[in-house]
Amino acid sequence: MSGRQLHLNINILHSGFSPAAWRMEGSDPRASFDVNHYVRVAQIAERGTFDAVFLADQAAISDRVDFRPLTSLEPTIVLAMVAANTERIGLIATASTTYNEPYNIARRFATLDHASNGRAGWNIVTSADLAQSRNFGLQKPVAHASRYERASEFAAVVKALWDSWEEEAFIGDATTGRFVDAGRVHPIAHSGKHFSVHGPHNIPRPPQGHPVIVQAGGSDDGRELAAEHAEAVFSASQSFEESLDYARDLRRRATRCGRPDNSIVVLAGLATIIGSTEAEAKRRQDELRDLIPLEYSLARLAGVLQVDRSRLELDAPLPGDIPLPADGGHTFFRATVALAQREGLTVRGLIRALNGGTGHRTIVGTPKDIADDIETWFTAGAADGFNLMPDVLPHGLDVFVDEVVPILRRRGLFRHEYGGRTLRDHLGLARPDNPYAAAAE
Amino acid sequence: MSGRQLHLNINILHSGFSPAAWRMEGSDPRASFDVNHYVRVAQIAERGTFDAVFLADQAAISDRVDFRPLTSLEPTIVLAMVAANTERIGLIATASTTYNEPYNIARRFATLDHASNGRAGWNIVTSADLAQSRNFGLQKPVAHASRYERASEFAAVVKALWDSWEEEAFIGDATTGRFVDAGRVHPIAHSGKHFSVHGPHNIPRPPQGHPVIVQAGGSDDGRELAAEHAEAVFSASQSFEESLDYARDLRRRATRCGRPDNSIVVLAGLATIIGSTEAEAKRRQDELRDLIPLEYSLARLAGVLQVDRSRLELDAPLPGDIPLPADGGHTFFRATVALAQREGLTVRGLIRALNGGTGHRTIVGTPKDIADDIETWFTAGAADGFNLMPDVLPHGLDVFVDEVVPILRRRGLFRHEYGGRTLRDHLGLARPDNPYAAAAE
Repeated sequence: MSGRQLHLNINILHSGFSPAAWRMEGSDPRASFDVNHYVRVAQIAERGTFDAVFLADQAAISDRVDFRPLTSLEPTIVLAMVAANTERIGLIATASTTYNEPYNIARRFATLDHASNGRAGWNIVTSADLAQSRNFGLQKPVAHASRYERASEFAAVVKALWDSWEEEAFIGDATTGRFVDAGRVHPIAHSGKHFSVHGPHNIPRPPQGHPVIVQAGGSDDGRELAAEHAEAVFSASQSFEESLDYARDLRRRATRCGRPDNSIVVLAGLATIIGSTEAEAKRRQDELRDLIPLEYSLARLAGVLQVDRSRLELDAPLPGDIPLPADGGHTFFRATVALAQREGLTVRGLIRALNGGTGHRTIVGTPKDIADDIETWFTAGAADGFNLMPDVLPHGLDVFVDEVVPILRRRGLFRHEYGGRTLRDHLGLARPDNPYAAAAE
Repeated sequence: MSGRQLHLNINILHSGFSPAAWRMEGSDPRASFDVNHYVRVAQIAERGTFDAVFLADQAAISDRVDFRPLTSLEPTIVLAMVAANTERIGLIATASTTYNEPYNIARRFATLDHASNGRAGWNIVTSADLAQSRNFGLQKPVAHASRYERASEFAAVVKALWDSWEEEAFIGDATTGRFVDAGRVHPIAHSGKHFSVHGPHNIPRPPQGHPVIVQAGGSDDGRELAAEHAEAVFSASQSFEESLDYARDLRRRATRCGRPDNSIVVLAGLATIIGSTEAEAKRRQDELRDLIPLEYSLARLAGVLQVDRSRLELDAPLPGDIPLPADGGHTFFRATVALAQREGLTVRGLIRALNGGTGHRTIVGTPKDIADDIETWFTAGAADGFNLMPDVLPHGLDVFVDEVVPILRRRGLFRHEYGGRTLRDHLGLARPDNPYAAAAE
């Protein structure tokens, strides 16, 4: 295998990427509420030597729950159960910086990292939507810029807490009775615009130093946050060029933040519908599409575009004057509008092209088609890896692991077995130095 | 076995109740930071058909970390790992109502309850101390009354969220495509003094209806909160009469809140040092005591009494004018002062009597001594069960399960096997009705 290493992450989007996944034969309609489903999917991904599993999060109910599973169970609890039932695979959970406190998040992810022997990752989100804001005492979402400003300070506080124990702080000498060297455990005494946190943390430094910081920002503020803090990003690029531009832009920004060139792993979103022939894959796509109620798809599209549903006419193009949402959701908004314009689609055509999804790029094809696409993107640097969203779970992942992964391995693109033990090992990310250790040198 | 059922809960106080537990032969000094330790202890408790394991919590570092393990790892993550490695035992985690948001806590405990098939419990604390307040943007703790007022509203919001899905809300009919009956998922539209939460919850009603609500308040406000919300309480009574009074007072208050007589299970704190003879138990007690640095014990006592350490003279009685702390920590303050006065102890004698502990009642004796004590308290109604704190973990629990539990079983006091599957089953607590179901009848 060459020096550069392909990375594969599975987005356990409950029953699968397709809104109709739960209705397919073999699917358990209850899977989204059953932690055993997440465990089973993670075990399949581990069999395929994936880097990590990922869980999105949303602290509010979806208004399309009539028709499909929603983001529901709290991800760190689910991933702790996954940790107990797996050995090597990374565990990336989403948590909002807008509706949490940094001391609590530092502890939760440090605990998951200790409990999993260094497999935890934290996907930072800033929670743009109204429904969440109303569950946390607000009448409208926090403004975009303020959310990102808070997120940046939040992440800095969390990292400072993780670093507040020097590596050598724990002594545990039963003979002398010295348990911890308190002189090596430091208050962080943070006093900023959004937070005042005295510290220190009450947990020794996590096995990875810091759990891996993940982010998915597409907006300018989001990219700045990623450039400053993220070690892996989920991108939602629709095209090869877009993804290449995104990766270059992010690296430029990271360099400006003083970070080394290889410090961010770009994982491109990739939805898959796999068949043993192209015709079979297309039939599967049609089958899934026919199971999605049109009522659902229209509501979904109106939500992404943040327009009233009455403005969307099925057999007309998108209205030309849809404004960029004042606040949040820019990534999927842009991807969706770009898709409609590029392909000259009507609303009905756009709905078909989206497959009920959120604007993530979808490949419908054979295992070889998918391996070819992955190789092209990876080799040209449009992505360092992929955030995989199979149509139906666990089925679509099972097929990927049994039929796509072997091709990628044969081509020398993907690991045959895990080379390391931590998520940082898998992603090829350095373990951050403890600043106190550096200061002492 | 008679109708009334003894309940046993294990407080997994990291390495054990004794501050020197981590120094004993056979102890792993790292145990407090190792989730496998908690799993191991829980498995022993499950072998002994205990009702539940319990984890305390503190979102700050202890200032006595030099000498002994501290409350460290985040308990819901640890208990999710325990859930994955056990089948029946209940899982009670502490979470603060002062430094969390109700929507987040509702989700975390609902997820743990779903993931464990109905074994979750939530121990409500209000976090009195300065160290925690300074990790959450405050310069001093929130005032006592305000903390309890917030806690009461917090618990009401959490319960309303758990109830926001009717039992029949989930449909999951793959044929019709109806996933959830959104008409049976209700916004809570809570607007109160401390919280404004629109809801609904994004998780179906937990298997237990509500995870079991636990509390440990000794103060007047604490007892009112328990009377209103708690289904199990941890008490810190030093004497039989005190515990009897406490149980009666709590039941009186609960009746005033309109709750049935058997709706609160009183679990009395019980620290144990077990030997096969009384002499052996006393030798063990001495051994543990000799391993506790005096410096530690003085700091600990000064902390409980909230006085400057310089006011404590080793060979004099406690100063007579120590005021009840202005804010919080009353339970252990009262228990400690009462012990010193009752026994006429010097500071040194008090430290010896406390065994480095926090004022919890300690029995030093044979398995039969402990079983006798438990039977006396239980039969007379001074407690419905015990919150067990063995001197050293897992050793002290192993001995309890192998040597005390069989006596309790032979006497017809304690279950031989689990009769039910949920924590409510174990505790003999009714599953709360969903108010929407009641309204529809």
